[in-house]
Amino acid sequence: MNLILLSPEDFTGPKTVRLEGRRCRHISGVHRAAAGRTLCVGLKNGRIGSGTVTSIKELFVEMEVSLDRDPPEPQRITLILGLPRPKVLRRVLFSAAVMGIKKIYFLNSFRVEKSFWLSPLVSDESIRMQLELGLEQARDTVMPEVFLRPLFKPFVEDELPGLTRDTLAFAAHPYAESCFPHGLAGPSAVAIGPEGGFIDYEINKLAEAGFKPVNLGKRVMNIEAAVPYCVSRLTP
Amino acid sequence: MNLILLSPEDFTGPKTVRLEGRRCRHISGVHRAAAGRTLCVGLKNGRIGSGTVTSIKELFVEMEVSLDRDPPEPQRITLILGLPRPKVLRRVLFSAAVMGIKKIYFLNSFRVEKSFWLSPLVSDESIRMQLELGLEQARDTVMPEVFLRPLFKPFVEDELPGLTRDTLAFAAHPYAESCFPHGLAGPSAVAIGPEGGFIDYEINKLAEAGFKPVNLGKRVMNIEAAVPYCVSRLTP
Repeated sequence: MNLILLSPEDFTGPKTVRLEGRRCRHISGVHRAAAGRTLCVGLKNGRIGSGTVTSIKELFVEMEVSLDRDPPEPQRITLILGLPRPKVLRRVLFSAAVMGIKKIYFLNSFRVEKSFWLSPLVSDESIRMQLELGLEQARDTVMPEVFLRPLFKPFVEDELPGLTRDTLAFAAHPYAESCFPHGLAGPSAVAIGPEGGFIDYEINKLAEAGFKPVNLGKRVMNIEAAVPYCVSRLTP
Repeated sequence: MNLILLSPEDFTGPKTVRLEGRRCRHISGVHRAAAGRTLCVGLKNGRIGSGTVTSIKELFVEMEVSLDRDPPEPQRITLILGLPRPKVLRRVLFSAAVMGIKKIYFLNSFRVEKSFWLSPLVSDESIRMQLELGLEQARDTVMPEVFLRPLFKPFVEDELPGLTRDTLAFAAHPYAESCFPHGLAGPSAVAIGPEGGFIDYEINKLAEAGFKPVNLGKRVMNIEAAVPYCVSRLTP
């Protein structure tokens, strides 16, 4: 936790917060902070600053906080991912939040197992937790938006063209001939299939929606590697 | 498993193999292969081709194999990583193998917990397994070499300068002013610190050994994201 993420409900006064649960245990157990110690804090969807521990008990920590700077600029990259298996989803959410991605669509596709959509790890609560952990790792405060799209065709036909207007859009596909470009300026989007990849029908539909198929080299990557690999390419 | 990795000891004749254990269970359980089915196979550190199932029993599978093409070109990128916590190590090994990295050094550093070196997940056997799983995902056969370096100073002073001769070398550091470059031709190396990063002394020693400190943006990345992010930058 490189930043302690605060919510409006943590505030007990204009500049004082009281934290319980996970963040309290982290401050005392991992940071081993005592009264007087200053840590990096940030208000969810707000500014970043420092918090000085004023009181530390077994069940809560109180801090005086000063929020004096903006969070890092968001990445203007939209991710569109075949829904991965739930345990992998958690790590992908975390990494995406770490890299400053602010918009992620999880999409059904022929090779997504239907049972994945029913997992408790696909709940709003579980998704929010991974995103918050990612922001805390990255020292960011701006929560990514996550959208679940369990129907491929209406999403790709009706919603996607609007999302990617004025955006350079790519679909990662092992059999594409074009290589992934490097260092783009401006907003971009990348679609990455599930385990086993998009099927030809899906790649064609994505291409119709303006997504250029590109390969990530001659190897078949797992989604945990493919996401940072693509984000790195699309970052100026 | 996009490729079934074969060892010389799997061969029962010049073109026939017999597989037991994990690969047998995968072929019958995940691929649901029956006799006559053809799957992608590759000989460890050798060529790639196809294998046709000739017999499938509960405890073994027999295949006739034909190895007719070379594995993908190796990435000429050397990774030098602060030893991560053991569970993270497994995923990093897997991702590195997936991306075609062939040389990985794990290094001690001030912020590496000493206990990590004693974990069974840092054993040769466990490392080999993750690398093989990565090759099977990527459709590659060439085993990466992994080197453990539990002493920072002798490694950086005595071994590293030789390793990175004629190589563009970078050290990922959140406070570096230079950005990570894009798309280098030729061999390269990247050093990434443990959780919490390299300390100043270590960054200075790496700089003396020819590693230019560069940042990965304004966020603090976890190693699982940082490795593919850096590899993507260094890939032409």
